[in-house]
Amino acid sequence: MPNNLASINEAFSTFEVHESKVRSYCRDFPVKIRHAKGSKIHSVDQQVYVDFFAGAGALNYGHNCEPLKEKLKAYLDNDGITHSLDFYTEAKEDFIYTFQEEILHRRGMKYKVQFTGPTGTNAVEAALKLARKVTKRSNVIAFSNAFHGMSLGSLAATSNPKKRQGAGVALGGVTFMPYEGYLGEQVDSIDLIARMLQPGSGVEAPAAFLIETIQGEGGLRCVSARWLQRLQALAHEHGALLIIDDIQSGCGRSGRFFSFEGMGVTPDIVCLSKSLSGYGLPFSMNLINPDHDVWEPGEHNGTFRGNNLAFVTAKAAIDTFWSAPAFERELQQKIVYLHGRLKALAERSSEYIPEARFLGRGFMCGIDVGSGEVASNISQEAFRAGLIVETCGVHGQVVKLLPALTIEYEVLVQGLDMLAAAFEQVIGIARYSEEKAA
Amino acid sequence: MPNNLASINEAFSTFEVHESKVRSYCRDFPVKIRHAKGSKIHSVDQQVYVDFFAGAGALNYGHNCEPLKEKLKAYLDNDGITHSLDFYTEAKEDFIYTFQEEILHRRGMKYKVQFTGPTGTNAVEAALKLARKVTKRSNVIAFSNAFHGMSLGSLAATSNPKKRQGAGVALGGVTFMPYEGYLGEQVDSIDLIARMLQPGSGVEAPAAFLIETIQGEGGLRCVSARWLQRLQALAHEHGALLIIDDIQSGCGRSGRFFSFEGMGVTPDIVCLSKSLSGYGLPFSMNLINPDHDVWEPGEHNGTFRGNNLAFVTAKAAIDTFWSAPAFERELQQKIVYLHGRLKALAERSSEYIPEARFLGRGFMCGIDVGSGEVASNISQEAFRAGLIVETCGVHGQVVKLLPALTIEYEVLVQGLDMLAAAFEQVIGIARYSEEKAA
Amino acid sequence: MPNNLASINEAFSTFEVHESKVRSYCRDFPVKIRHAKGSKIHSVDQQVYVDFFAGAGALNYGHNCEPLKEKLKAYLDNDGITHSLDFYTEAKEDFIYTFQEEILHRRGMKYKVQFTGPTGTNAVEAALKLARKVTKRSNVIAFSNAFHGMSLGSLAATSNPKKRQGAGVALGGVTFMPYEGYLGEQVDSIDLIARMLQPGSGVEAPAAFLIETIQGEGGLRCVSARWLQRLQALAHEHGALLIIDDIQSGCGRSGRFFSFEGMGVTPDIVCLSKSLSGYGLPFSMNLINPDHDVWEPGEHNGTFRGNNLAFVTAKAAIDTFWSAPAFERELQQKIVYLHGRLKALAERSSEYIPEARFLGRGFMCGIDVGSGEVASNISQEAFRAGLIVETCGVHGQVVKLLPALTIEYEVLVQGLDMLAAAFEQVIGIARYSEEKAA
Amino acid sequence: MPNNLASINEAFSTFEVHESKVRSYCRDFPVKIRHAKGSKIHSVDQQVYVDFFAGAGALNYGHNCEPLKEKLKAYLDNDGITHSLDFYTEAKEDFIYTFQEEILHRRGMKYKVQFTGPTGTNAVEAALKLARKVTKRSNVIAFSNAFHGMSLGSLAATSNPKKRQGAGVALGGVTFMPYEGYLGEQVDSIDLIARMLQPGSGVEAPAAFLIETIQGEGGLRCVSARWLQRLQALAHEHGALLIIDDIQSGCGRSGRFFSFEGMGVTPDIVCLSKSLSGYGLPFSMNLINPDHDVWEPGEHNGTFRGNNLAFVTAKAAIDTFWSAPAFERELQQKIVYLHGRLKALAERSSEYIPEARFLGRGFMCGIDVGSGEVASNISQEAFRAGLIVETCGVHGQVVKLLPALTIEYEVLVQGLDMLAAAFEQVIGIARYSEEKAA
Repeated sequence: MPNNLASINEAFSTFEVHESKVRSYCRDFPVKIRHAKGSKIHSVDQQVYVDFFAGAGALNYGHNCEPLKEKLKAYLDNDGITHSLDFYTEAKEDFIYTFQEEILHRRGMKYKVQFTGPTGTNAVEAALKLARKVTKRSNVIAFSNAFHGMSLGSLAATSNPKKRQGAGVALGGVTFMPYEGYLGEQVDSIDLIARMLQPGSGVEAPAAFLIETIQGEGGLRCVSARWLQRLQALAHEHGALLIIDDIQSGCGRSGRFFSFEGMGVTPDIVCLSKSLSGYGLPFSMNLINPDHDVWEPGEHNGTFRGNNLAFVTAKAAIDTFWSAPAFERELQQKIVYLHGRLKALAERSSEYIPEARFLGRGFMCGIDVGSGEVASNISQEAFRAGLIVETCGVHGQVVKLLPALTIEYEVLVQGLDMLAAAFEQVIGIARYSEEKAA
Repeated sequence: MPNNLASINEAFSTFEVHESKVRSYCRDFPVKIRHAKGSKIHSVDQQVYVDFFAGAGALNYGHNCEPLKEKLKAYLDNDGITHSLDFYTEAKEDFIYTFQEEILHRRGMKYKVQFTGPTGTNAVEAALKLARKVTKRSNVIAFSNAFHGMSLGSLAATSNPKKRQGAGVALGGVTFMPYEGYLGEQVDSIDLIARMLQPGSGVEAPAAFLIETIQGEGGLRCVSARWLQRLQALAHEHGALLIIDDIQSGCGRSGRFFSFEGMGVTPDIVCLSKSLSGYGLPFSMNLINPDHDVWEPGEHNGTFRGNNLAFVTAKAAIDTFWSAPAFERELQQKIVYLHGRLKALAERSSEYIPEARFLGRGFMCGIDVGSGEVASNISQEAFRAGLIVETCGVHGQVVKLLPALTIEYEVLVQGLDMLAAAFEQVIGIARYSEEKAA
Repeated sequence: MPNNLASINEAFSTFEVHESKVRSYCRDFPVKIRHAKGSKIHSVDQQVYVDFFAGAGALNYGHNCEPLKEKLKAYLDNDGITHSLDFYTEAKEDFIYTFQEEILHRRGMKYKVQFTGPTGTNAVEAALKLARKVTKRSNVIAFSNAFHGMSLGSLAATSNPKKRQGAGVALGGVTFMPYEGYLGEQVDSIDLIARMLQPGSGVEAPAAFLIETIQGEGGLRCVSARWLQRLQALAHEHGALLIIDDIQSGCGRSGRFFSFEGMGVTPDIVCLSKSLSGYGLPFSMNLINPDHDVWEPGEHNGTFRGNNLAFVTAKAAIDTFWSAPAFERELQQKIVYLHGRLKALAERSSEYIPEARFLGRGFMCGIDVGSGEVASNISQEAFRAGLIVETCGVHGQVVKLLPALTIEYEVLVQGLDMLAAAFEQVIGIARYSEEKAA
Repeated sequence: MPNNLASINEAFSTFEVHESKVRSYCRDFPVKIRHAKGSKIHSVDQQVYVDFFAGAGALNYGHNCEPLKEKLKAYLDNDGITHSLDFYTEAKEDFIYTFQEEILHRRGMKYKVQFTGPTGTNAVEAALKLARKVTKRSNVIAFSNAFHGMSLGSLAATSNPKKRQGAGVALGGVTFMPYEGYLGEQVDSIDLIARMLQPGSGVEAPAAFLIETIQGEGGLRCVSARWLQRLQALAHEHGALLIIDDIQSGCGRSGRFFSFEGMGVTPDIVCLSKSLSGYGLPFSMNLINPDHDVWEPGEHNGTFRGNNLAFVTAKAAIDTFWSAPAFERELQQKIVYLHGRLKALAERSSEYIPEARFLGRGFMCGIDVGSGEVASNISQEAFRAGLIVETCGVHGQVVKLLPALTIEYEVLVQGLDMLAAAFEQVIGIARYSEEKAA
């Protein structure tokens, strides 16, 4: 990358002068993007990047996925209605029907759908409202290292202290409990939670347990099927709902459409967003156990809950990828390859970074390198080589991969090679420092 | 309209079986929409409706506005990046530049832009966070009949009791004060607010005053320039920020780009959304006085804050409509006509509905008919005739018109004729009942 | 007063070294007290002070009132049980019986009694809990310049900003409204409150209105009978309870036993404390409309709610002062004298302090001198002359008199003479400064 | 006991008709008390009860303790000032001096004293305010089965769900953690708490840890010295204060003056109340690390914080019992006897109630009988025999002994014999039922 700071400043001056200091990803990846296709991003100055980030999980089918684009353009050409609040539209009906048939019915699931505002945080806000209404309770159990969004209701269930502090007001109505493994291998956190829900513990009876099966921001920790089953049993024993926030881990990211498929649970509410539209269009939806659909008309609303372009691409994504088993089958193979490479890389790294280890599930995985500085150096080194890969975890200590599910093998290989080189480079420096010190 | 209840049920069964009971507009306007163009909506069963609703103000330039569509399709064709979080993109740079030049610079305004999540409620949440951070205070002054959104931070500043109850938790950090005129003509609510901010009143020192210049959901009440200036002076005297929620009233809806243009105020933060993209695409932005841009990187974030399709259409909307004075000039003429018709209608109505009166500003206006039942009957009657027009106000007592700013004269006339007929029909029934009773 | 600062420091060193800096009255009145009798306080160094403070209203019958002391000593001599939580005791039965007969029955009132913890703030906490339980609502309407106590529930209803800030947490569940006259003479605050309780105002439906009929800390403002009746009507119209905090204004302070006697209202809950025991012993009690006694056993409790010494003196106070009409009759005469002197003093003062005016009711009255500095100077000057008189109001701008109801005429005259001299002295200085400036 | 229900009703009709239903102890112990001396209570109908309850720990020196009574009467005879807010008084000076010399100095402790309102809950409220002010944080860590009081600030830190529900509003600002042993023997709750205070757990950085060393209401669980030391270390590592609520466990109840004496900790704040006055008079005091005395004058106040009668008896109690080592020495012997008897009783009981076991420390101990019903039956059976002994724990499952520290051996023996008989009787019934079933 030929950029020096001076040229960066000039190239990005519009942003630096006119956009709020709140901007963040652009600070780590200072490049001005023009085109993007599949898993490749093209900058204004003709650089090409392999994308292992996929819009933070909002682009599971890659950028500008052709079959979706075709449907989208046809809809636009026909002047299909774009914006419709919660009016009935043909596009919405087609989406609902397809989702019910191809996604829910095939999996033996029975849910009603609610179109909340088109952001993940809005889906979580709606889920929490509903759980509180159903149970007439206010307390919600959330988990260590959870991320659920930035509006006050979701933020109250988000664990990151800096994000919380940004609220500027007290965040109440949520009790945090340890996620599986958070207390180490010896302590069974379900037993602990069960004990902390006994009368006299001080913890108020919960309306819901809100959980990510794979923690996206929090550092790629996952729950096991057994733990999740016990959590569900505990929730129901206490008259609480189980809400799975599948916003980042859903829509195939885990290797299955839902991250909790095959885990032996039936959540009461499922929050979906990010890759639901399949094309990066803002779109969110909650799945609701029909018995809990106690909403009054309009009790939760929002201007953009009827994003018909998203209905069109979301339906197209299902038709294209999920109506036949081939996609999932191929994805499993890629997962095997990806995990193999990462595990090997983690093992090699562990020679100089003893705590290095593989984390995650499906196409939502990475390597904990034990320190935010090391992880950031790796991400920066990879970026210089042409790979976009982010970090996560409360200290930014995890190098996190979110490739598009549709990534071609050769691009996956190329990206992994660049990543391995970046690890080598950063670890090499560590090794060199170590040798010098020795 | 030939529909009877049985056929409705069949036609809408997908929604009735599979979509949550929270859906609401579709209950008042039971029609399945396929196409829409300009100010006309086409149903699946070939009905055509004049649209005086415009996506609750999200479609100020009508449905599928051609110049915007051209740019959107070209961007799609070129595989322009769609989704980019807060990465730098060319589309974003172009939008920022155009907005700064054509909107802010022309009006002598200096603001930085912040792309919050793409919903109005997210913009409000971000504005409140920032005001609380700037002032290190938590209390916010909101107003009677305010609507600011449905996530917990915004909902705390929303006055509707049913919406608030849906929260399921205590909503704090907000003190409500009377909007201009809320206490009647005799009471100067600025004096009152000033008094209630004196030490000892019990009201905590505020971080911000959050206000709509025209109350969209609350019933089309407006603030005068003088009142708003005094409110700003009061805010600044108390070290509080003035936040204008221009989500529904902005982007030309008031007759000017900003609803507060020409009113002699310089808000510290302005929230924009709804018609900002111009094409019904989810998009929100806060304008921030640069002195108050104290955000830490990533302190407020969201997956869909980089909606590049919205950047493209938003820029196109500015280029098409706001870069030359003709659009605003023509709009003023339409407003004169619209207000003239509505005032005449209000006066005619007042013979049988004495409280009937014109309310609102610009293309955000209507008639208070004193009762939710009468207003609903008028809306239903209009719908049967082929006009979509909603009601607002805490009792639904206001018939509210939000035509597209681009509506053709003849369609405007056609819609107003249908509306007048609906008034006549409903008032006729009232008159008949009255005569029978006499 | 011969004290100089050095000797003060030595004399008070135990306190200055070992007691928290939170102490406050002792800073304004630096004297070490040994004895006290009636309306005279004797210091360790043989100074005698006239007491126009009466324990902030906790000593309505003066210090060490003989008839009460006799009963107290006899009870102690007999080893009557002192502390009993909420066990039944003979002393408690005797008190309840006497209070029911001599106080409530004579006034045609029907209330159940609840012995809360022995402090005023605890009585208010219990009243708010009960009102919230009865109505299943959380919001409480409190008033500008209100003072109800320092524990979090009561503090939330207390308006003083410094006291509130001491909470260190958000204080919620209370909406402040303007007290009678707070908005000036022109604005009818009942109309305003009524308007602010309409749906859509944003103010949540209240569980209760909590009000002092005479504002003790807030500056001696009073409500009129008409205003209070309308407030009660408004409360009941909205399904809310009327709670009168008669902690400082009750037990004869207003000239009648209850401050609201003869005002045409029947509060749902009345909070009593301060002079209830009559001897300065900690004791509090709520009067509850029997229909609202929905407490579960032990739902509100406290170690010291069964203070039998207080039961004994409280009964003795009723027997001594309230079982015959003479006491009240004489009190009225003293009030006429007291008010006459104060009004004359206020008028004389208004020559140089134009805003000077008489405020208050009964033996809870004073002069607003427009500035905390002037009021403090007067209080300090009076103290130097041998009179203890405090200030109140959010700026400390009111010289506040709370003489014992039993004060002898000559002591009252003596105190008022000292007060007049202090006014003269302080105003003389003001006059002198003014003349010099002229 | 000859009472039947009819006679009860007549005897207690004043209470039943006129006192709120909130009364509770009197329901379990329906007796009308007249006299009390030492550890004996005398009813109006000439019954005598051995008192193993001691005013819920407020009467550590028994009823009407002679040496204290003498001082109290002398003070009254001399017209010593009774009520003084926070004025300086001789009685207060004498108390502070004696407390500093005889209690703190002897133990090498350095604290300033703060006289809060005279109730335990007020002391806790003040402690929490101060900790929040010192640390500028709002979150407080409290523990499972904690009881700290009934006003909203303290109630937020109280774990009992029924008490909490009585608040009628959301109780925030407190996070509950497991007390030592709450999670069973295997789980080290300090490790757990440490983990839950790591960034990312979701638990906000605490202002303080608030803990009882012996849980009075919660069921007589105790912390070990080691656990408490580690808790203190953890608090200080996180910049949080350690507050020990010694309201019930202090003033000798544990066998030492402070319950934490000899445990190797130096709390930042200690809350004292209950037996502090020694005579059952309402009185509370916080001990504050002088470095943390950041109060503004009057920032926390209250009418009854200067209860001079309590100063007098509190000083007398120190002089009488704590200025020489004999009292503590004798107390230790009684504790050995008491524990021996209770342990034997627990062991005998465990034959038929396997979970029966001894709990507690010093003169604050009892037997967990595993069920609230059994414990209640034992308490009732003992009452019929002439012994007052209460139950505690979230299910009321613990028979709890709080004898006066001054109880004569023969009365202690008598009471324990009655208790053993009550156990025998209740367990005998259990045994009989069991045999019948077998």
